[in-house]
Amino acid sequence: MRSAAPRHLCHIGDLTVEDMDRLLDTAERMLPASRGERVVSAADGRILATLFYEPSTRTRLSFESAMLRLGGDVISTAESGSTSTAKGETLSDTIKMVASYSDVIVLRHPREGAARLAARASRVPVINAGDGAGQHPTQTLTDLFTIRKAKGAIAPNTVAIAGDLKYGRTVHSLAQALALYGVDMIFVAPESLQVPQDMRENLERMGAKIRTATTLEEVIAETDVLYMTRIQKERFPDLDEYRKVQNVFHVNNRLVADGKKGIIVMHPLPRVGEIDPSVDETPAAKYFEQAAHGVPVRMALLADLLGLEVRG
Amino acid sequence: MRSAAPRHLCHIGDLTVEDMDRLLDTAERMLPASRGERVVSAADGRILATLFYEPSTRTRLSFESAMLRLGGDVISTAESGSTSTAKGETLSDTIKMVASYSDVIVLRHPREGAARLAARASRVPVINAGDGAGQHPTQTLTDLFTIRKAKGAIAPNTVAIAGDLKYGRTVHSLAQALALYGVDMIFVAPESLQVPQDMRENLERMGAKIRTATTLEEVIAETDVLYMTRIQKERFPDLDEYRKVQNVFHVNNRLVADGKKGIIVMHPLPRVGEIDPSVDETPAAKYFEQAAHGVPVRMALLADLLGLEVRG
Amino acid sequence: MRSAAPRHLCHIGDLTVEDMDRLLDTAERMLPASRGERVVSAADGRILATLFYEPSTRTRLSFESAMLRLGGDVISTAESGSTSTAKGETLSDTIKMVASYSDVIVLRHPREGAARLAARASRVPVINAGDGAGQHPTQTLTDLFTIRKAKGAIAPNTVAIAGDLKYGRTVHSLAQALALYGVDMIFVAPESLQVPQDMRENLERMGAKIRTATTLEEVIAETDVLYMTRIQKERFPDLDEYRKVQNVFHVNNRLVADGKKGIIVMHPLPRVGEIDPSVDETPAAKYFEQAAHGVPVRMALLADLLGLEVRG
Repeated sequence: MRSAAPRHLCHIGDLTVEDMDRLLDTAERMLPASRGERVVSAADGRILATLFYEPSTRTRLSFESAMLRLGGDVISTAESGSTSTAKGETLSDTIKMVASYSDVIVLRHPREGAARLAARASRVPVINAGDGAGQHPTQTLTDLFTIRKAKGAIAPNTVAIAGDLKYGRTVHSLAQALALYGVDMIFVAPESLQVPQDMRENLERMGAKIRTATTLEEVIAETDVLYMTRIQKERFPDLDEYRKVQNVFHVNNRLVADGKKGIIVMHPLPRVGEIDPSVDETPAAKYFEQAAHGVPVRMALLADLLGLEVRG
Repeated sequence: MRSAAPRHLCHIGDLTVEDMDRLLDTAERMLPASRGERVVSAADGRILATLFYEPSTRTRLSFESAMLRLGGDVISTAESGSTSTAKGETLSDTIKMVASYSDVIVLRHPREGAARLAARASRVPVINAGDGAGQHPTQTLTDLFTIRKAKGAIAPNTVAIAGDLKYGRTVHSLAQALALYGVDMIFVAPESLQVPQDMRENLERMGAKIRTATTLEEVIAETDVLYMTRIQKERFPDLDEYRKVQNVFHVNNRLVADGKKGIIVMHPLPRVGEIDPSVDETPAAKYFEQAAHGVPVRMALLADLLGLEVRG
Repeated sequence: MRSAAPRHLCHIGDLTVEDMDRLLDTAERMLPASRGERVVSAADGRILATLFYEPSTRTRLSFESAMLRLGGDVISTAESGSTSTAKGETLSDTIKMVASYSDVIVLRHPREGAARLAARASRVPVINAGDGAGQHPTQTLTDLFTIRKAKGAIAPNTVAIAGDLKYGRTVHSLAQALALYGVDMIFVAPESLQVPQDMRENLERMGAKIRTATTLEEVIAETDVLYMTRIQKERFPDLDEYRKVQNVFHVNNRLVADGKKGIIVMHPLPRVGEIDPSVDETPAAKYFEQAAHGVPVRMALLADLLGLEVRG
């Protein structure tokens, strides 16, 4: 990722395993500062611009918190950067403008490929915070960091990913990164929401060992990491189909008790019934820690792209 | 308020008179910094998150200004934190997320009791900035500070509170605090908007001397502090009833001239006709000072909850 | 502009040529800090409040970036300050409130004259960031700075201003300032969108040499600065009229090649077809630099109004 031109993070595939390891190591060192236990001023005088064409409070706040914890500042368009767009401005022109007011841009956009387009127009680094059905690479880095913290390493582990595997961008980014690390994956979903065939072939070409399943029960005993995702009601043509799936993909204490020793449960949040609140109190529950890890991981990425020296 | 668990401010009843006196003393020392006349860096590296499920520019900006004047930073959801809620997330889950991005949370929520619920879920202090018809304790602290500044002390004084006493949350918080200080109160309202019976009984149990009246004229000569509130048109089933009330509860220079020597006029603002603009120029008018006092009072509270050392 | 009362910038006519020269000199010194190449802390502890009653991402972000680059902080109402207004509060009362939370206010308002009204109510400086069909003086200062940077000086130059000259507030502010500097102007517009007669007479009284034209082709050979503005479709009663104009006021590489030696092309942005993207790559294109110049110019103005010492 090092060069004279601004470096960007548009796609998890922009990073090698070495890049990711380096970022996760830095994130580890950022942990105390991410919780406000240490004051950092490395980004003093630097400005992060958040440019969100669709709202995402969680992602926006975690980036803003990360920049502030580094000692930097933030300018923010919480709902769009919309006014110029409404007047007919191209994304390219908007990015050139925002880039002249800031040192790094975080972009959320409904259209796949928007981040790449923005990166080409920008004189400062662009970070993709989700573009349509495309990528959300900082979520993936956060997921990897959480697995590493909980299990000591990313591989070898068996990761079961469950829920909507067809449309969820979280899943596509994550599976690609796990494949790079040589992790075994089980995709748990009803037939209608299984991973697309081309994605599966792509992962297998990368050498990943992949299985599919349709219930959590049949895989829980061999799962080290159970990664749940939200199932969106509106994706189902038939409401009866939804109700069937909804009940099948519900994690409770009984399921966790049947799981492999040391199993952890993750979720990118928000959840809406996929995980019973009683699980929150068990040591298996890692989803709130996962949310909190968004800050040190994004601090590490910002520091890297801005070329900051941060003392550990 | 001191303990190892995070302390919160959900309800004015969470504070003793000693707590309030201490906060008002600190607010006094914060005055120069609150006006930008002194630069403070006590909150360097700390982050305030404002989480507003309903808009309130005034309250949000005064909290943000207070945190910045302390040298801290702010992340902000001006209109809701809504995206996760729209996706069906519980308040508890949202709070856990925001708490992992910040050091203190200011919550505004339309439902009574939301602040208490949030406090239970949060690993960082939660401040109630208004929850439905419930409490708005920092408004009350600001009111107390303004009375003390103008009159030298909170008691003994006769405080007449006028307007919509049935629904206004400002009034309920304030009356409770004044009762603790042993202040005499006159509730001035049309019958249909008088204080609820249970609240009145509660105040009397606390030892407060309480009277009611229906016009300002009958009480103005014995009033030290006239506290006006906004009468909301939409509360009246009959528009004629509203018009009658609207005219009766109008403060002008003539009324102030008839008042007790040294009388002051307060209003939580915004006003919409309750106080004639000509009153603004008189020494009795304290409502703009009252608005400005929101900053030092909130600085004092933030410093207290965050355990900051601020030099006076 | 120096006095004990707070100084404001409501109208470009509030500034003399000496004032403008001084601000542009300061802006020149701010350039490295405006790009983040130097860290400034002159505004440490000071708060800028942006109060936008209509959205303008570009203007708001450039002011916020300017304040942060000076080392100050920002509180922001991106879409209105609306809640109090919705409750019926006057602009005067809202300004008094915001002024007690901040050290300088940037106001955008749909009604002409709003900035003057706000300035009268405020104890802190008010900067007009656009009021209806009225003024937008910081855009004008940015334009002047860009001309000076590109051409070495503001006069002598021939500036052709093209597009919607009847309604565009950008144009009215700019023409007035150029007249003060003794710049020759050519107003290029269809008859229906030419500068209003009273404005033209006013400029001529100031000693400006003014011509009008209806096509770019007839003036391009004698133009030093071509200032394009956006033509708004909705202004045309007849869509055929719009289409005719739209084609006539389109700058492409061929037109620029026919221009006077050293010609530069400016545009306040956003553009929607007035300038072909292929022009972006030519040395004539100055509109992105112009956008970037909004930061150092606003830094200079803020430093001036706040009385800050900024080392060059």
